[in-house]
Amino acid sequence: MTHAGSSQTAPASPANDAGADAHFPDAALIALDWGTSSLRAYLFDAAGQVLATRSSPAGIMNLPRSAEQGGFDAAFDDVCGAWLKHAPHLPAIAAGMVGSAQGWLEAPYVDAPANADALVAGIVRVKAACGATLHIVPGVLQRGELPNVMRGEETQIFGALTESANATNASSNDARALIGLPGTHAKWAVVQAGRIERFHTFMTGEVFAALREHTILGRTMVTPDRPDAEAFLHGVNIAREKGQAGVLATIFSARSLGLTGQLPGQKQPDYLSGLLIGHELAGLDAVLAQQQDSLAGQSLRLIGNEALCERYRLALAQFGCTRTELVRQATERGLWRVASQAGLVNPAAQTAHAG
Amino acid sequence: MTHAGSSQTAPASPANDAGADAHFPDAALIALDWGTSSLRAYLFDAAGQVLATRSSPAGIMNLPRSAEQGGFDAAFDDVCGAWLKHAPHLPAIAAGMVGSAQGWLEAPYVDAPANADALVAGIVRVKAACGATLHIVPGVLQRGELPNVMRGEETQIFGALTESANATNASSNDARALIGLPGTHAKWAVVQAGRIERFHTFMTGEVFAALREHTILGRTMVTPDRPDAEAFLHGVNIAREKGQAGVLATIFSARSLGLTGQLPGQKQPDYLSGLLIGHELAGLDAVLAQQQDSLAGQSLRLIGNEALCERYRLALAQFGCTRTELVRQATERGLWRVASQAGLVNPAAQTAHAG
Repeated sequence: MTHAGSSQTAPASPANDAGADAHFPDAALIALDWGTSSLRAYLFDAAGQVLATRSSPAGIMNLPRSAEQGGFDAAFDDVCGAWLKHAPHLPAIAAGMVGSAQGWLEAPYVDAPANADALVAGIVRVKAACGATLHIVPGVLQRGELPNVMRGEETQIFGALTESANATNASSNDARALIGLPGTHAKWAVVQAGRIERFHTFMTGEVFAALREHTILGRTMVTPDRPDAEAFLHGVNIAREKGQAGVLATIFSARSLGLTGQLPGQKQPDYLSGLLIGHELAGLDAVLAQQQDSLAGQSLRLIGNEALCERYRLALAQFGCTRTELVRQATERGLWRVASQAGLVNPAAQTAHAG
Repeated sequence: MTHAGSSQTAPASPANDAGADAHFPDAALIALDWGTSSLRAYLFDAAGQVLATRSSPAGIMNLPRSAEQGGFDAAFDDVCGAWLKHAPHLPAIAAGMVGSAQGWLEAPYVDAPANADALVAGIVRVKAACGATLHIVPGVLQRGELPNVMRGEETQIFGALTESANATNASSNDARALIGLPGTHAKWAVVQAGRIERFHTFMTGEVFAALREHTILGRTMVTPDRPDAEAFLHGVNIAREKGQAGVLATIFSARSLGLTGQLPGQKQPDYLSGLLIGHELAGLDAVLAQQQDSLAGQSLRLIGNEALCERYRLALAQFGCTRTELVRQATERGLWRVASQAGLVNPAAQTAHAG
């Protein structure tokens, strides 16, 4: 597939083409990243090349009308109708919250450890009003006293694994690797031999927003013109070196350092961000230590918003983890891979481009 | 003073007497606990007995009119005017946020370690429009890389110390002791030889409210008819035994345990409360360990809302700390003590009742 090779040199996805001619004779697959607050659609050719993309704010909690009134069909038609008009039998696949209990059709979680075959086996099918069949990829559940769940990230992770399998050699897939997905609910997955072995969730992004917008910490904060790396790293290193009392204690310093004149309001947002990400990484490191592993010296991959991944890259370096690689187009790659493995696209065309 | 002896047998404070005759010939001191969201006033006789109390929602962020328009005078008159009408020269003392930069007059923090003399030396005086002079007790600042501040709690702590000095013998005051003040911003103070040596702040109460009201965790929560001690202790013990990844990770289990059917919505609020308080105590224990101390076997005092202190008592027992004593009327006792030490009340009358 054309996504193989260095992600740095991969072309950017084509712009949203809502106004353009939607007739793509080479179209082979519609793939959707359908989350809580947005819907992104990719049109692939049979070689795994993205021909076009479309996006909409119609996440499952933001449908144009209620689910009972056909909200899912309406959102699907709005985004993919023009593509399907010319090719009504195009296979379609979706990952994300669209498969949750609040989604179009629930795709029950598959248990970790999970490989791509397990995801394929867990796919559920929903017949859209327009006649198309949407294949919904399940999320992954890690059972236990502190269970963990993901929906959407599993597909991105397999997208990242696809890249390394193509870029280097097949045996690299057997090594244990760590993949981080920063965000509202950051995920950290341990992958090995093409499987998601286990994973952790940190509510870092959502907690940051709640602290900033709904606690006293936000009152003295001033949004800086640009990210303040120094304040951010200050927070990271406080969490790493002086964080024994835990995040409930250290976050108060965003206020007390302001009261003592040691941290002006413009530095407080990045300092708090550093504290939280620092505590996340310290917590991750503690969990890794239980498995005779650590962040120090680790080579890992990050998936997500570039600016946020850059924050994590800076923070990880403080933990001795300097080899971090940003994986681009992990979502598209993952959707393509699961669709291929499910037989939704022609394996011959895929094979011709692999390796 | 009549507060000496077991707090269990101390009489409850008289009810708000807004409508009653406000003439108290024995009145010797007006004492105010003036915080962010409320104002409580106590009228003492010369022996330290509370004659009457009044309260108002006129905290410093909730004045009847702005500070520039005399909001502090208006709130003071509203609560204490009837008492001052009959005794315009009554001394008056206040502790809490009224002494902050946003208060009536800033009483700069005194540095920890701080004893009651240091508080007295830091008192600032503001002349009210009615002619009375209000003495404002300063807060305490612990300087450092993670500074800590308190305003109001220092007075409660000295109130608690007064009790033990009277109830047992003077030497008990020399032992190192731990005092906890659960709340929006929980404080834990190490006291020794009548001094606040150092203290820690945990934003536990405010973080709980922000998580419950402004994150996904609140969406599936159902308020139970009464506190669920089992769910609470479940959370405490997860934090204590399985909390290595930190609170940013464990809180997600309030959701994931719901998704897997292991934790119904009615149990989620108390479970989350237990997680947060458990992480607070684990963090406190880690800090104590750095000083060759621990919660296990510790005898400590709690000051604050009774139901909340009961939660902490249950949680502390999980950490091996089974000797917890709830200190009642710590605020009144502390205000009385600082006023006495500042010479605002007749020492002879106080001495007659001491011991």
